[in-house]
Amino acid sequence: MNKKACRAALIAGAILLPCALSAQSSAAWTAETIQQLKQIQQTALQDDHAYRYAGHLTDNIGPRMVGSPQAAAAVEYVADEMRKLGLEVRLEKVTVPRWVRGEEHAELVSYPAQVPGTEQKIVVTALTSLKCATPPEGITADVVVVNNFAELAALPREKVQGKIVVFNERFDQKLAEAGFPLMAYGQAVDYRERGRLEAARQGAVASLIRSVGGADFRLPHAGETEYDSKVPAIPAGAITAEDAELLARLTAEGPVGMHLVLTPKLLGEVETYNLVADLKGSKRPEQVVIVSGHIDSWDLGTGALDDAAGVAVAMQTAQLLKQLKLQPERTIRVVAWMAEEVGIFGGRAYAKQHASEVGNHFAAIETDLGAGHAMGINLCCDDAMLKTLQPVGDVLLSSGAGVLRSSDDTGADLIPLKIAGVPTFSPLQDARTYFNYHHSAADTLDKIDPRELQENAAVVAVLAYALANMQTELPRKAQPLPDWMR
Amino acid sequence: MNKKACRAALIAGAILLPCALSAQSSAAWTAETIQQLKQIQQTALQDDHAYRYAGHLTDNIGPRMVGSPQAAAAVEYVADEMRKLGLEVRLEKVTVPRWVRGEEHAELVSYPAQVPGTEQKIVVTALTSLKCATPPEGITADVVVVNNFAELAALPREKVQGKIVVFNERFDQKLAEAGFPLMAYGQAVDYRERGRLEAARQGAVASLIRSVGGADFRLPHAGETEYDSKVPAIPAGAITAEDAELLARLTAEGPVGMHLVLTPKLLGEVETYNLVADLKGSKRPEQVVIVSGHIDSWDLGTGALDDAAGVAVAMQTAQLLKQLKLQPERTIRVVAWMAEEVGIFGGRAYAKQHASEVGNHFAAIETDLGAGHAMGINLCCDDAMLKTLQPVGDVLLSSGAGVLRSSDDTGADLIPLKIAGVPTFSPLQDARTYFNYHHSAADTLDKIDPRELQENAAVVAVLAYALANMQTELPRKAQPLPDWMR
Repeated sequence: MNKKACRAALIAGAILLPCALSAQSSAAWTAETIQQLKQIQQTALQDDHAYRYAGHLTDNIGPRMVGSPQAAAAVEYVADEMRKLGLEVRLEKVTVPRWVRGEEHAELVSYPAQVPGTEQKIVVTALTSLKCATPPEGITADVVVVNNFAELAALPREKVQGKIVVFNERFDQKLAEAGFPLMAYGQAVDYRERGRLEAARQGAVASLIRSVGGADFRLPHAGETEYDSKVPAIPAGAITAEDAELLARLTAEGPVGMHLVLTPKLLGEVETYNLVADLKGSKRPEQVVIVSGHIDSWDLGTGALDDAAGVAVAMQTAQLLKQLKLQPERTIRVVAWMAEEVGIFGGRAYAKQHASEVGNHFAAIETDLGAGHAMGINLCCDDAMLKTLQPVGDVLLSSGAGVLRSSDDTGADLIPLKIAGVPTFSPLQDARTYFNYHHSAADTLDKIDPRELQENAAVVAVLAYALANMQTELPRKAQPLPDWMR
Repeated sequence: MNKKACRAALIAGAILLPCALSAQSSAAWTAETIQQLKQIQQTALQDDHAYRYAGHLTDNIGPRMVGSPQAAAAVEYVADEMRKLGLEVRLEKVTVPRWVRGEEHAELVSYPAQVPGTEQKIVVTALTSLKCATPPEGITADVVVVNNFAELAALPREKVQGKIVVFNERFDQKLAEAGFPLMAYGQAVDYRERGRLEAARQGAVASLIRSVGGADFRLPHAGETEYDSKVPAIPAGAITAEDAELLARLTAEGPVGMHLVLTPKLLGEVETYNLVADLKGSKRPEQVVIVSGHIDSWDLGTGALDDAAGVAVAMQTAQLLKQLKLQPERTIRVVAWMAEEVGIFGGRAYAKQHASEVGNHFAAIETDLGAGHAMGINLCCDDAMLKTLQPVGDVLLSSGAGVLRSSDDTGADLIPLKIAGVPTFSPLQDARTYFNYHHSAADTLDKIDPRELQENAAVVAVLAYALANMQTELPRKAQPLPDWMR
């Protein structure tokens, strides 16, 4: 019976063989390390520190919009907790634009068979970008609904000029529920990112997207939209799925006029920080394994799934090792990234600031897809790692997290390091409902299942310690720098 | 093989026997009527008038709060449609209080480990009653969270005096999903109805409930709360499930202060109308079978499930019979009830106005539990009807709506008629997710599945025609008048 068949038998629960469950050594890990990984896993599955970290970040601190007092307080909180554990803490500067939400509301002021003297409310939230506000009194214009970019492009310019364009692109919830949430997100988020530019190029006076998310509870989802100095910077917002459908139906009957008020403000650049906390390695302290999440969040909810959960799991890695008195051979570096939401400012700043020591970054892990049931590990981007990491997968298998998957989905903040050749990882999470809450007012602590958060902490802590104590090297592959990172 | 076994076999799909599918007569119906019922059913399952009616009421007219221009326009719309079909239309006066929503927001202004200079937002909506507003500037007080009335009663008065009481009673979504949504609602709605009075009796300055509904999308649910002139009329609102949980967690850590603004207004009494439209009977025109829904709605959404769907299904009954050129033997009366939401004003006014002819009300049907998959008929309140109505159930079985169930859940507007002895009915609907949307901003047209609305229309139209052409009498049982109806 080979190893693969042995694991299959274990999964099926049919027989027990001393194949993967004993403390076997491999080329990459000593038997002692494998035993320690099991100890970390078991402790993680019973420890509630991660949930308490997430609770403090969301309940007591609250929304952590970039540049806000809450985001700054969150950095301080993580720093304090890491200092208490005895880690070496640094705040590393990240300069970011400070955007604040203003008034936001919309009403249909004219539509077919309207009851005289009444209006209909459209639930809207502003998208974030340079120059995306209406005047304080708002604008009033007719609405044009298109389902996609092709429909917009097919319209003669005079049908769009002076109008409010609504992109009614539907989030493919069936795709998400079938296990491909990031693909569903990718399809829909294109409209959030590029919609304003495409509408403006056709002469629109404002651009509204159907919110990127799968639930049907009249919930707008915030997010960023692109800015291009060569294109008029028209106001941009996200309306709810229900309101997008209403507009599609009403515009099919006749002209629909909307009054739209979105008055966010850009207050200029402010200094913020990535939080970097080192649990020094015993043998190769100069080599670093990052465990991370991003500390900033959108402001409508309290950023529990996105991404207090990820920060909490990273903090928990340090806490578990300290609790178990395990010192890794390489340095484990807890990072709370700043300003992921508005353009990966923290991840980019870090890569620049640490460019000369990128070769010492042995690996990096980020958790940024919620806190759903952990099923294994995404690893990027060399299939050879699948085999090397198998002993780690074997340890995690007992809590249902034994899948090793080659995947590019290892966290936005790690993209700059990934491009520089650092092997990157993330927990493989059940994210089928993640985008229902993502960037919305409903992203709150109750969306984190304490048990599932423990599962994620187990995966990240086990993986981080395994990487820190690895006796062999990982394959590294630098990629050319894309334009947006220059 | 008896009839029961025959039906069981049909359901199982195992064999086909000429038991229930042929046009058999019974004591109650002629073979011709049974044939007509099948024709109504098949047409209803393919006709889209009901969906178009619901669409106009929700998309074009919008929210239909009692006393609003939209509610009045909705009555006119139904009247027009019924007149176009050739029905005899009357508007019957209902005097109602006109309540309008004001400002509503809440913020946590002090709480454990608060970030200086920041607040946390609590999503709240006002409950409707006499005198339930704060001053325009709001009130600020500490929060006390209780899970139920018993916990409140167990608190010493000084712990409640001057505080904002939050009832964190959880809607039992598992009970709802298991097929008992009305029981889950009944448990939770008790707090919406009585919470304010109980809190005020203990000296509270405001009362907030956890919204009555099962979803977790930061959605407040509106509704009525009781008034008692002998108890201080303190402000009352409903917060979201998320916010109730946040308050439960924060108050467990230390004092929590809230600023609460709820400024609804009561504008006095206004004249509104029940819409009554008769499709005259050919043989017993003085005898009436009511088909109905309520035309008023809450104002946060557009009242699609609650209860444009019910009105649309009632309208569709008339439309189908006209389309099929079927004149019922008894009069079929389409009623769009006014002011169900704020205290069944329309249903009570009708019962008073028609008290002398209540004996001519052969039966009454109401649809007011959404538009979910129709599974059969609720009939109230004599088990003897189960057997009598079996031929109708047999017709409906082919579309999955063959269940006959003795139940008291036949629509709030029919309670006064039921008490007067009129047999009452409603479609038996899949309402497992109904209360997730009920009274919230998310009760919009997209929540109505066109196919399922057709199923409901089929049940109601078939049942109405069957009752109108019944050759036998139904058992009648008057009940004593409860206090609230005097």
